[in-house]
Amino acid sequence: MKLKVKVLQLATKGTLVGILNEKDIQGLGIKPLDRVEIKDKNKKIIISVDEALGKKEIESGVIGIFLDVAEELNIKENDLVEVSPTQIPESLEYIKKKLDGGTLNEKEINQIIKDLLSNILTEVEATYFVSGCYINKMTMEESAYLTKAIVNNSSILNFNKKIVADKHCAGGIGNNRTTMVVVPIVAAAGFTIPKTSTRSITSPAGTSDVMEVLAPVTFSKEKIMEIVKKTNGCMVWGGSMDLASADDKLIKLEKPLSLDPEGFLLASILAKKLSVGATHVLIDLPTGHEAKFTSVKDSKRLAQKFIDLGKKVGLKIKVIITKGDQPVGNGIGPALEAIDVLKVLQNDGPKDLKDKSVYMAALLLDMIGVKDAKNKASEILESGLAYKKMQEIIKAQGGNPGIKPEDIPLGKFTFDYKSKKSGKVEIISNRLVSKVAKIAGAPYDKGSGLYLYKKVDEKVSKGEVLFRIYAEDKYKLDYVLKEELDNVYKL
Amino acid sequence: MKLKVKVLQLATKGTLVGILNEKDIQGLGIKPLDRVEIKDKNKKIIISVDEALGKKEIESGVIGIFLDVAEELNIKENDLVEVSPTQIPESLEYIKKKLDGGTLNEKEINQIIKDLLSNILTEVEATYFVSGCYINKMTMEESAYLTKAIVNNSSILNFNKKIVADKHCAGGIGNNRTTMVVVPIVAAAGFTIPKTSTRSITSPAGTSDVMEVLAPVTFSKEKIMEIVKKTNGCMVWGGSMDLASADDKLIKLEKPLSLDPEGFLLASILAKKLSVGATHVLIDLPTGHEAKFTSVKDSKRLAQKFIDLGKKVGLKIKVIITKGDQPVGNGIGPALEAIDVLKVLQNDGPKDLKDKSVYMAALLLDMIGVKDAKNKASEILESGLAYKKMQEIIKAQGGNPGIKPEDIPLGKFTFDYKSKKSGKVEIISNRLVSKVAKIAGAPYDKGSGLYLYKKVDEKVSKGEVLFRIYAEDKYKLDYVLKEELDNVYKL
Repeated sequence: MKLKVKVLQLATKGTLVGILNEKDIQGLGIKPLDRVEIKDKNKKIIISVDEALGKKEIESGVIGIFLDVAEELNIKENDLVEVSPTQIPESLEYIKKKLDGGTLNEKEINQIIKDLLSNILTEVEATYFVSGCYINKMTMEESAYLTKAIVNNSSILNFNKKIVADKHCAGGIGNNRTTMVVVPIVAAAGFTIPKTSTRSITSPAGTSDVMEVLAPVTFSKEKIMEIVKKTNGCMVWGGSMDLASADDKLIKLEKPLSLDPEGFLLASILAKKLSVGATHVLIDLPTGHEAKFTSVKDSKRLAQKFIDLGKKVGLKIKVIITKGDQPVGNGIGPALEAIDVLKVLQNDGPKDLKDKSVYMAALLLDMIGVKDAKNKASEILESGLAYKKMQEIIKAQGGNPGIKPEDIPLGKFTFDYKSKKSGKVEIISNRLVSKVAKIAGAPYDKGSGLYLYKKVDEKVSKGEVLFRIYAEDKYKLDYVLKEELDNVYKL
Repeated sequence: MKLKVKVLQLATKGTLVGILNEKDIQGLGIKPLDRVEIKDKNKKIIISVDEALGKKEIESGVIGIFLDVAEELNIKENDLVEVSPTQIPESLEYIKKKLDGGTLNEKEINQIIKDLLSNILTEVEATYFVSGCYINKMTMEESAYLTKAIVNNSSILNFNKKIVADKHCAGGIGNNRTTMVVVPIVAAAGFTIPKTSTRSITSPAGTSDVMEVLAPVTFSKEKIMEIVKKTNGCMVWGGSMDLASADDKLIKLEKPLSLDPEGFLLASILAKKLSVGATHVLIDLPTGHEAKFTSVKDSKRLAQKFIDLGKKVGLKIKVIITKGDQPVGNGIGPALEAIDVLKVLQNDGPKDLKDKSVYMAALLLDMIGVKDAKNKASEILESGLAYKKMQEIIKAQGGNPGIKPEDIPLGKFTFDYKSKKSGKVEIISNRLVSKVAKIAGAPYDKGSGLYLYKKVDEKVSKGEVLFRIYAEDKYKLDYVLKEELDNVYKL
């Protein structure tokens, strides 16, 4: 069927879609969500069809296409294109198989991921894949195939090194900004550690949000290679590259129901590590009250799966289960956390953040064959070598290497919460710390958040300040004061 | 956040969507596919958000909205609207529950259907509902709640009659156009039978496609009421009314993977019956080689479920399992099937179609209390009363009541397939009959299809014509001749 092109001044990151008149959809013998092939000169493209609601906007004989489709085909308004129904992709059969309780092989999973990336699969179809993997679970082999498929269909970093270190925290607790101490230590020890991180999804700050207080974090793949070659390390936002982009598409579909199928979680994390060329990976599973993982038994089970999957995809993995019953560090929110990190690198700052970071850096150095790793890690931090490395990285990423903790602006509207009684801190609620910091404006307002003056087991006198709230906007501070502040600490 | 409206000259039947710039999505603290509330003056509406790919089309500070959203809110280009993140709908929690293997109650299922209809649920979210019901199955109670929810959230026909008859064939075999004989018989007997049918989805013709050869089938709810009040019956397309529209939305999502969760199948059929006000329903499950149902045992199990579900939703149901090993009637394709039907109503035409139709009409009349129903049904057909009633209905629907079988145009490009040997017909392939008729152009080319000169158990001499192919286009005939025509019949 020849149709006249109407270019819709619009493009989205979703499935490629063409809008047709009801009559033409019937004429093609298809239904909404079916696929058609659009051909023009030498190029062709497969897109999904939706039905125009009004007959006026898309008349019979017209196909409305999004800007990205028009650009891909290099066609203009009023061009005539040949539109024809196309065969359903094989990957749909594999998705059905998974829904029906079957087990997929390497070729099948790779085809699904390939079709997902080239937008041949619609969001509805990909959602069936997520559902099948969620309800029917994935075998370890399937997770390995998925990991490889995500990596094989993404662009990856290649440093041509025998050893590339990496770390990951499957988080859920406040601050815990160990990455920003571990990366400088490992890089200063002479090893490559190209760290990509996320922005916050549901927390008051992700590592990218915190690093951004000190330097830009959004770079092309080429620029990242350059930064790492110069300094051994980087701390950049993973989302700006095309690394593991199939994974991003799956995560988008998981979000509405907050699904996190275990097989996807494992594959998602390890694919990101493989895509930066990592060989040795340390994974931290903070476990405790109101953390993402609440039972040590479950964390141990998950740890074993990381190790098993690592073997299958060629990654050396060590997993640590750390205490996750309260935030690590004192600041919560991008600027406050950046201050904690800078202080630790200058032999100041929160002891728990320093100790955990040194412990993790030592484990990572030990994994990659450094002798007496524990002393080595401490030395690098305490001698100022790690701080010097951090300054190099900040500079390479375009930030100001001379930045001092006191230079970092904080929200000017503050509130000190004072203890209503004397006693010992029993519990700090991870959930409420996060909620309060977010209402105060974190992570979008970099200077907003919470500073914890007291940690678990510390003694408190009546009237002492337990925590200070920082907000960049007055109305956000007013709003936060209506929250259940009395329950953030339990004495 | 105040945003300036850009009205996209477009509307689809899918989820209501707003397109935002990446920066504003981050600023709102949301992700693509999240929901926002748009407020303007006194109205508000909840829509789902997608991210613009290019920054030029949707700049920061602008929200691109589809025509239907603009109309609903009564806003114009460049208006300022307040956009804010909104709470996630409760129905998402219920969908998650079903995915996790839980059982839903009446309130929960009703809320899901309500949110589906008001476009509060995105297609991705509704797909999770379909997945959960498909993989984890539905209980009979859940099917009953789903049936009621579909009906309660649709507009329905109400004839204020104690008895409203209906029939349904859960098909899969060619022709089988009993509806167009049963409806005139039952209506001529004085009972109300407001029959809505589908168009073909995967077959060479649906009842609506065939009836459309004789009269229009697309009417408003009011017009259908008028037709039925005048003639006792109708044969119209169900899709043109708002009856059971939640069901249509679910079917759209099932299609890409050809899913047909049994709980949905049952609810979908009975909801359509309830929505036309039916009280007594006869259901036909043709069972046989290459039909939709291939095992009598499975059909019996399904029959019992129809009866059980009928009890729960207040419908008297009778189910018959009929032979489905070959097409019923001789013509396959809209015009050829319409000719068969007209001939049967004039005491001519295929004996199997006539016998099955009289049998079904008699069962339906018996169900609604007519004595000696078998003779009554035969009498009404053979006396010409049913044909007269058919003419009334054709007239009421705006067709030509005087139409004769020979008036109906058939494709002028034909091919006679002659038997390559003598023998007895063992098998006619339902699958290949359907495939050949569709390639010849059915149902879109009304005059295209197949005429079967021989049925199972009939004797054939070498060189005798087994079937004739009709096509409206020469190239479609050429194309069909490349098919495996030798396997349509097995002697």
